[in-house]
Amino acid sequence: MDGSLKRLYEPSTIAVVGPSPNSSNLATVILNNLLSAARGGKLSANIYAVNPLYDECLGVKCKKMLEGSTDLAIIAVPTKFVVDYLLQAQDAGVGVAIIISGGFSESGGKPLRPVIHKTRVLGPNTIGIVDPYSGINTLFLPDYKMNSDGVSLRSIPDPIKGRVAIIAQSGGISVSLYDELLSSGIGIRSLTCLGNSDDIDSSEIIEYFSEDRFTDLIALYLEGVQDGRKLMGAISKASLKKKVVAMVAGVSEAGKRATSSHTGSIVSNSDVYLAAIKQAGALSVMDFRDFIALIKSYQMLGTVKGKGVAVLTNSGGAGVLAADEASLRGMNVPPLHSRLMGLKENGALPGIASVENPIDVSASGNDSSIEAVYESLMKFDDINSVVVISTHYPPGITDRLPSMIASIQRKIRKPTVAVELGRSPWSYRIREIYDANGIPSVDSPQQAARILSLLYMLNEIEPAWGPVAVHNQATFGPGVHTEPGLIDIIGTFGFKSPRWAWVEGEDDLGKIRYPIALKVFSGLLIHKTEAGAVRVNIGNKGDATASFRDLRKAFPDGKIYAQEMIVGTEMRIGIANDTAFGKYIDIGAGGVLTELLMDHRTRIAPVSSGEALKMLEELKAAPLLKGYRGRAPADLGSLANSISSLSAWAASFEKLKEIEINPLIVNDTGSFAVDVRAIVEP
Amino acid sequence: MDGSLKRLYEPSTIAVVGPSPNSSNLATVILNNLLSAARGGKLSANIYAVNPLYDECLGVKCKKMLEGSTDLAIIAVPTKFVVDYLLQAQDAGVGVAIIISGGFSESGGKPLRPVIHKTRVLGPNTIGIVDPYSGINTLFLPDYKMNSDGVSLRSIPDPIKGRVAIIAQSGGISVSLYDELLSSGIGIRSLTCLGNSDDIDSSEIIEYFSEDRFTDLIALYLEGVQDGRKLMGAISKASLKKKVVAMVAGVSEAGKRATSSHTGSIVSNSDVYLAAIKQAGALSVMDFRDFIALIKSYQMLGTVKGKGVAVLTNSGGAGVLAADEASLRGMNVPPLHSRLMGLKENGALPGIASVENPIDVSASGNDSSIEAVYESLMKFDDINSVVVISTHYPPGITDRLPSMIASIQRKIRKPTVAVELGRSPWSYRIREIYDANGIPSVDSPQQAARILSLLYMLNEIEPAWGPVAVHNQATFGPGVHTEPGLIDIIGTFGFKSPRWAWVEGEDDLGKIRYPIALKVFSGLLIHKTEAGAVRVNIGNKGDATASFRDLRKAFPDGKIYAQEMIVGTEMRIGIANDTAFGKYIDIGAGGVLTELLMDHRTRIAPVSSGEALKMLEELKAAPLLKGYRGRAPADLGSLANSISSLSAWAASFEKLKEIEINPLIVNDTGSFAVDVRAIVEP
Repeated sequence: MDGSLKRLYEPSTIAVVGPSPNSSNLATVILNNLLSAARGGKLSANIYAVNPLYDECLGVKCKKMLEGSTDLAIIAVPTKFVVDYLLQAQDAGVGVAIIISGGFSESGGKPLRPVIHKTRVLGPNTIGIVDPYSGINTLFLPDYKMNSDGVSLRSIPDPIKGRVAIIAQSGGISVSLYDELLSSGIGIRSLTCLGNSDDIDSSEIIEYFSEDRFTDLIALYLEGVQDGRKLMGAISKASLKKKVVAMVAGVSEAGKRATSSHTGSIVSNSDVYLAAIKQAGALSVMDFRDFIALIKSYQMLGTVKGKGVAVLTNSGGAGVLAADEASLRGMNVPPLHSRLMGLKENGALPGIASVENPIDVSASGNDSSIEAVYESLMKFDDINSVVVISTHYPPGITDRLPSMIASIQRKIRKPTVAVELGRSPWSYRIREIYDANGIPSVDSPQQAARILSLLYMLNEIEPAWGPVAVHNQATFGPGVHTEPGLIDIIGTFGFKSPRWAWVEGEDDLGKIRYPIALKVFSGLLIHKTEAGAVRVNIGNKGDATASFRDLRKAFPDGKIYAQEMIVGTEMRIGIANDTAFGKYIDIGAGGVLTELLMDHRTRIAPVSSGEALKMLEELKAAPLLKGYRGRAPADLGSLANSISSLSAWAASFEKLKEIEINPLIVNDTGSFAVDVRAIVEP
Repeated sequence: MDGSLKRLYEPSTIAVVGPSPNSSNLATVILNNLLSAARGGKLSANIYAVNPLYDECLGVKCKKMLEGSTDLAIIAVPTKFVVDYLLQAQDAGVGVAIIISGGFSESGGKPLRPVIHKTRVLGPNTIGIVDPYSGINTLFLPDYKMNSDGVSLRSIPDPIKGRVAIIAQSGGISVSLYDELLSSGIGIRSLTCLGNSDDIDSSEIIEYFSEDRFTDLIALYLEGVQDGRKLMGAISKASLKKKVVAMVAGVSEAGKRATSSHTGSIVSNSDVYLAAIKQAGALSVMDFRDFIALIKSYQMLGTVKGKGVAVLTNSGGAGVLAADEASLRGMNVPPLHSRLMGLKENGALPGIASVENPIDVSASGNDSSIEAVYESLMKFDDINSVVVISTHYPPGITDRLPSMIASIQRKIRKPTVAVELGRSPWSYRIREIYDANGIPSVDSPQQAARILSLLYMLNEIEPAWGPVAVHNQATFGPGVHTEPGLIDIIGTFGFKSPRWAWVEGEDDLGKIRYPIALKVFSGLLIHKTEAGAVRVNIGNKGDATASFRDLRKAFPDGKIYAQEMIVGTEMRIGIANDTAFGKYIDIGAGGVLTELLMDHRTRIAPVSSGEALKMLEELKAAPLLKGYRGRAPADLGSLANSISSLSAWAASFEKLKEIEINPLIVNDTGSFAVDVRAIVEP
């Protein structure tokens, strides 16, 4: 890092370019906001305005041009003037420019990138940054708006200091996240809207906040990406020091269409994108409301250290929903009956309470019943987190309960999410009191369970991304290559090949022991099976002769070879290129079944042996490899080594467009590459 | 129906059993509520109280005993007095009793069922019913509660008339759903809490509201079930006249534990339960918040008639999220560029707007930009529903927009869900105005898309449940049966069997053409493969002789037979018994892969040929059967006929515990039952 981001987030001198006497002019709004922050003692930077048409604006002298000592220039002028001001900034030696103005590549206009050389640029087409620590806030949207009854209502909340650095590509999502969190009293470390990312990108900002002492959590809203590997590097470095959560949008065709027009970024295959994020050590969240609830809950609770969840409720049905969801998400909901029975016996709970897990104090339960169970739960080592569902309807539940729960939680620190259902004034009040007391509240039993499971995953996730040694530098020329030509190179990674022999005449058919396959070798045949150029499971000489004659007739120019049939578990390994992330590897079960059953795992290449082993173990068909129903188990360790070496080689062989082993037949004697196909670019 | 439910929902005379001078006594609260409803003209029934200890209560004369002309008795007395009052009611000829009191089977007490014979009972352990049409409301929870600042806040809203009949097992969920809907201004046809269902069950109430002219939608919250087939019958009849949505809880082990203690119901395998609900014609919803949003949206919008969705937004990122979700849920988000370009050209939209789909008017867009696009969308035949995301932050968006959208929607009636993000006062206001104008609002772009997809599914769903003719009445004795003994019966359904022959000595090995399998026949061997009693893919006499000797040695008492190896797609068909739904059928792909890859479909037996065909087509592996990659396609129609006949036979053969064909090998010449196993109970 060259220090330019420090000039963005902690500038000594700020210029606002474009203010005018018109109070709704964006630059004027921004200047006004910064001046009030300065007057209120929240912002200590020097601020000046630039506009050659006016002498002063909002009581500040307007300069004709940008000055050299400027750390940060905020440029909010009509599109056609942007380039001139950017050139002026670069001539003057301005550190960073936030370019609010849009109208560039995102909407079919010219990209700004070619013009950027010295001054670092955030944007264009960005709403800029909010940093409650330095006091900078470039949000130009109205804080208050008049409604149709003539009442002024708050539209955007004021910033509060917190510990999450939010980085989002979209302006609309940036503002929404800001509103969601700040209106709920959740502070932020900073909000950064990337806009078109023509210069400063998410990677750089991630790197900046991974070194920041006020940041605990980095939350990313990502759409397209330009340099996928740079992003992975930044996240994997950051995730060693901070927690990183990411929401990726634009995964469907329609979403991609919108994303590319919206940010002009390169859009990846979504499997690859999500794999990359995870491999780099960030937790992906798919749902917008879960994303917000997770940020809020992490700031209040930190992570969850184990899988044991207790569900404490006064509504049986809601408890069932939370327990179902926790179980479905892989958490444990252990029975607690024997340990909690005492509470019923000593009268702390109503007679009709159920002390399973969920523990249902029933509608006859009051504040004290819930408190008594909650306090007991704190002592159980196998309970790592708690869902408290305290519907407010029963007469025995008061609005003192949230602080009773919170004061126990503050001592024991077992992460707890509260659920309050309904939309009545009491519902809102109880949720607010929980939040104000540091217990995140939600309005869905299922979401509470999901959030605890996400906080547990956030505890466990770690980066699995780094260099892997390349032992083999072999390359070959452009075109389509198949086995048997590829047998040697594949062999150096540890993949075996079935015995084979050229069949020039019928006499050659005896060379390989039956059953055999007969295949036609031809560089033109990329999909041999579909073309009818493969005959498998040939059990005897008679069938072999007939098949040989058929193939000879159908493919008079192809060379034919016989291949031993291997019995074992069918797999597929493919390595290909993604537009943003480069080479990725995909492993699946069952040749033909991979694409139908979607049982496959994707990673960015190269993968270490350890990560390759994880890929194999994550497959639903993994038990087939491990000795399912009396099969002899395969040596997964050596298969993982082979996959790792193959991935490292493929990642380093730049002209290799793709390579596929399909099927790879795995049994207890090794992994046999039955069909191999590679495409090398000119 | 015997008319007793009419006496529950439209009683002429109501008795409240148990009121006392204590104003917080449940019966007193209920009596008070009913009396105020009567005074307010909302309830026209005669009301009297029963309590032998008092002469009057709340100004009403207390009778010593229940009287014969009573349609509905509401019993809210300590558990120990319940049976006496129920017997009294039955002696007097009371029509229906709502038994509010708990303490029976749900909490380890005695079940009430044996005592019920004449008076119909709702409950025990129920909060009863709310019916805004007849004015009956037995909710005994406080409408208002005092908070700790001494302010009285609403805790439960007043009833409003609507068109959804809610039927829920759990009291807590009943109240929460009631609060969620009524507090948002959504009316209900009725709310019925089943409690323990010791007499009146969900089926009967579903049947009642399926004949009701004020009901459009029946919404079920189900946990366990007693008589699964009765429930299916009720839902399938109802779904011909009304829309039915269902949320099923208790699908995990922890959830089941809670459910069985909570309602004392029988808990099914969740795959079977969900299959049954769907087969009967109800739409299952898994998420609690989606369930509520769906009920609200259906009441405002009805169903969605086609898959085409337009996403109209002023926040690019939020539009991407909605489009992604719609696509992932199987909706179409067609490109609209060419049809909307005119709006940009004529200046109705800002220059930086994007008129793909999502259509992003950008933060520069105002009310009129959104209105102009929305109006255009109404004209497109391939757009059946719309998501409008109008974040309130831009200065050009006012709180007049919701009614502008609503007035267009009222004319064209294209279902539209509005999304407003954030938690600021403006966010709440905009959502409220949308709701008040008949456009359901949500706070998540993804949820809006999900709701439209659910409304589309609700349009398409239809019952697939009814009798299937049984052509074969064959049965056999208790024990474990396998092939070759089962070949004949299986054959009558149209399943083929591979050629086979007993192998008594090595000379018999030549009877079946290679490759063959050798199997040991023994009633004791239920899992032949695991026991090592099967050798497959034997290609020649030498291998066959060796295998035969091995098997002879390992299983000296078993008879050995040779079976032709069949090449084709491996499938599995299983029929077994569920505790609540009886016989169900499960079809999956790939013998060994079914349980690993979970590619299977479940239905309650019997299934028609048409439904069996649907099951086959829903399999992810279906393309394998239809001629994938040059394979010859199987005759799915005749396979479906076989499955249907098998299911009808199995459903009618009561002592049959289970039957499994695994593998069933399907190819273009037929469906071959390679292994068959049936268990018949004594």
